[in-house]
Amino acid sequence: MQPKAGPRISQIHITPIAIVDPPLLNAAGLHAPYALRTVVELVTDDGISGISEIPGNRDIDEALAIAKDLLTGLDVFNLNEIRQVLSARFGTETIKRGETPWDQRKLVHIFSAIEVACMDIIGKVTGRPVVDLLGGKMRDRVPFSAYLFYKYEGAGGKLGFGIDPDATGWASARQAAALDPAGVVAQAKAMCAEFGFQSIKLKGGVFEPRQEVDAMFALREAFGPDVPLRVDPNALWKVETAIQYGKEMEPILEYLEDPVRGQENMAEVRKAVKTPLATNMCTTSFEDIPNSIRIGSEDIILSDHHFWGGLRSSMTLAGICETFGRGLSMHSNSHLGISLAAMVHLGAALPQLPYALDTHYPWQSDEIITQGRFQFEDGAVVVPSEPGLGVELDRQALATLHQNYLDCGLTKRDDEVEMQKVQPGWTFQSVRW
Amino acid sequence: MQPKAGPRISQIHITPIAIVDPPLLNAAGLHAPYALRTVVELVTDDGISGISEIPGNRDIDEALAIAKDLLTGLDVFNLNEIRQVLSARFGTETIKRGETPWDQRKLVHIFSAIEVACMDIIGKVTGRPVVDLLGGKMRDRVPFSAYLFYKYEGAGGKLGFGIDPDATGWASARQAAALDPAGVVAQAKAMCAEFGFQSIKLKGGVFEPRQEVDAMFALREAFGPDVPLRVDPNALWKVETAIQYGKEMEPILEYLEDPVRGQENMAEVRKAVKTPLATNMCTTSFEDIPNSIRIGSEDIILSDHHFWGGLRSSMTLAGICETFGRGLSMHSNSHLGISLAAMVHLGAALPQLPYALDTHYPWQSDEIITQGRFQFEDGAVVVPSEPGLGVELDRQALATLHQNYLDCGLTKRDDEVEMQKVQPGWTFQSVRW
Ligand SMILES: [Mg+2]
Ligand SMILES: [Mg+2]
Repeated sequence: MQPKAGPRISQIHITPIAIVDPPLLNAAGLHAPYALRTVVELVTDDGISGISEIPGNRDIDEALAIAKDLLTGLDVFNLNEIRQVLSARFGTETIKRGETPWDQRKLVHIFSAIEVACMDIIGKVTGRPVVDLLGGKMRDRVPFSAYLFYKYEGAGGKLGFGIDPDATGWASARQAAALDPAGVVAQAKAMCAEFGFQSIKLKGGVFEPRQEVDAMFALREAFGPDVPLRVDPNALWKVETAIQYGKEMEPILEYLEDPVRGQENMAEVRKAVKTPLATNMCTTSFEDIPNSIRIGSEDIILSDHHFWGGLRSSMTLAGICETFGRGLSMHSNSHLGISLAAMVHLGAALPQLPYALDTHYPWQSDEIITQGRFQFEDGAVVVPSEPGLGVELDRQALATLHQNYLDCGLTKRDDEVEMQKVQPGWTFQSVRW
Repeated sequence: MQPKAGPRISQIHITPIAIVDPPLLNAAGLHAPYALRTVVELVTDDGISGISEIPGNRDIDEALAIAKDLLTGLDVFNLNEIRQVLSARFGTETIKRGETPWDQRKLVHIFSAIEVACMDIIGKVTGRPVVDLLGGKMRDRVPFSAYLFYKYEGAGGKLGFGIDPDATGWASARQAAALDPAGVVAQAKAMCAEFGFQSIKLKGGVFEPRQEVDAMFALREAFGPDVPLRVDPNALWKVETAIQYGKEMEPILEYLEDPVRGQENMAEVRKAVKTPLATNMCTTSFEDIPNSIRIGSEDIILSDHHFWGGLRSSMTLAGICETFGRGLSMHSNSHLGISLAAMVHLGAALPQLPYALDTHYPWQSDEIITQGRFQFEDGAVVVPSEPGLGVELDRQALATLHQNYLDCGLTKRDDEVEMQKVQPGWTFQSVRW
């Protein structure tokens, strides 16, 4: 048998989209009525299409457009070469994850976009789901946690730009605000009832710590000891704040996520608090890992294939975590079903999965895949068994959401600007309490 | 498109073989006239065959026979599940790499055997060479180094058990002894002339250090500064010996391999000697890595897919080395073309390959693949482009070499016993000078 030639990358389509997003609060401000995503479609010389989805940002879209020329003609199986080509072009950028509210590194985003689309194609060519390209399925369903947010009331008007009065997220909490412990509990009950989640995370860093800690105790009161709880102050707390409240929450938390900023501060908190610390902010790249190991900055890395350079790199990260006795789970941003499918394939391949993964998916109502919105069963998503990612692009929906992008005028995520529309003069602070 | 079912493991054939090996000297004694290998063939329910080769050892063959029942019916793509099944059965063994002259851990050997054969099948099913299943080819040819040995004269008689008078290895050095610097240089010249190697390693730990160091300087004198040199005393030196001779050889060595035993001793030598230290003895498993990183026991890990649990684990090891700024190259034992093919596919996929790999292959003269012996071009092997490993089992040769195994009576490697036939009373010492 002779080896098959190609399949080689022939076309790369980059489509920025804007998806309806509710007025969720977080350390960086307020979600705009639209979250941006970029959908990438690769087409091979023999007409096979592969897709992926990454956080939307005009600078990254422009870098992707540059990458197009570099990648045309490359074999989709040769991900090592593709990575090398992209590293040579974008590997010297000086942007670091650092202190910015979110990740703007180009190389990892671009490589993630290209790699996932290539894996989709490889899966289609070989007739296997992506999970099988990662070593095969360790579980049939991948569990996610309820991802709670402090949230303004979601009716139209100024928060919806006047464009989308339904920018309110998942059905059961439609319109409802959640600005105190009772609101948080109500949101959790509605979300768990609808999706069946069996663990709960609260995005903190919004109100002063006392109120957020009270919300966690209210959740414990409402859900009992069998529902694991996590809170993520997004690094806004000082070390002494984190130690004080971390100790107070020791009896009720599964893990405490990024209470403070920076590996050194995390390591200090970790020494003082028994609860495991998780991060998607202090250790965010392979470059960060040696110091993380040296000083012991966290117990659990919240991986994200969009930020760690794709699915195979995420498997390498899993190997590193296993080797060094670190836990691994998954971070999320507002996203649609292509990203969810990739997360589920990866989640299914991970040797260990002790923690339910994060997902914003319930907060979105749009979709760009022909099967429509993914369903959750008992908080879990069944791993697609079709070749590739197992999802196909809904071109009509893509066109509509691209038009949303053109209409809304957003070019990058900026929750600070959005927050200022509600609280004039509000500014992001990297450490607040 | 519906996903393909299977292919599932239907048969596992385990064939121990004995291959002609010359009287090579090393820290553990003397190579027997036969080296043992085990050839594993998996056959799927739809009749596709995949092969692999591992070091031969009756205990491991017996464990493989137990593994057979556990693995029948499993999907060859589901390597994660296969590993889990094998770990559950063999992961609790107490054998460590430790102080034994060679690696006798069952789990890594068995998983390597099964994984490589599965990868061969996956490659055949998908029409892609194994390198493409590891992310694709970073280079078309994989460079190896000349692997020199102190060696007795290779004529028949007592060293050949009277069975194989041609147990003399590669053609150009047929019969020749190499027991001093001049003999080593002659061997190097013959080997480099025949295979085109462009770097040279001497297996040391045989004679007292002064003579071996003299041999290295003689090689430098003969080959000049453009041919990288390495010496491997196989951990037989004391720390002070290693520091003394390590410093002396600083001007001429590319790296110094396992001068001393254990990570702590290696770390001490590493602090004192400028030459990079390489190891296949002090850091030999993922479990060893955290302490290696903590104390800085080596610069370069000499990976070996037979001992690190297969090709994909070796890629994870490569990711760990890249993350922590360690170099990576490859260790070898006496082996035939199935192992060489696997090594070449892996070597081709590694993102970085700054050092030519080790191979004993020139010392062997048997082969069990239909294409016959691999050729070297300028010391490198061209990466096979056929689907899978790109080599097919020569069943006639397999039968012959299996008969050798039955006839020679060896059941495991024991260089000490062999050495005692030449030097009565000789015993292995874990630290000698
Ligand atoms: Mg977080
Ligand atoms: Mg060695």
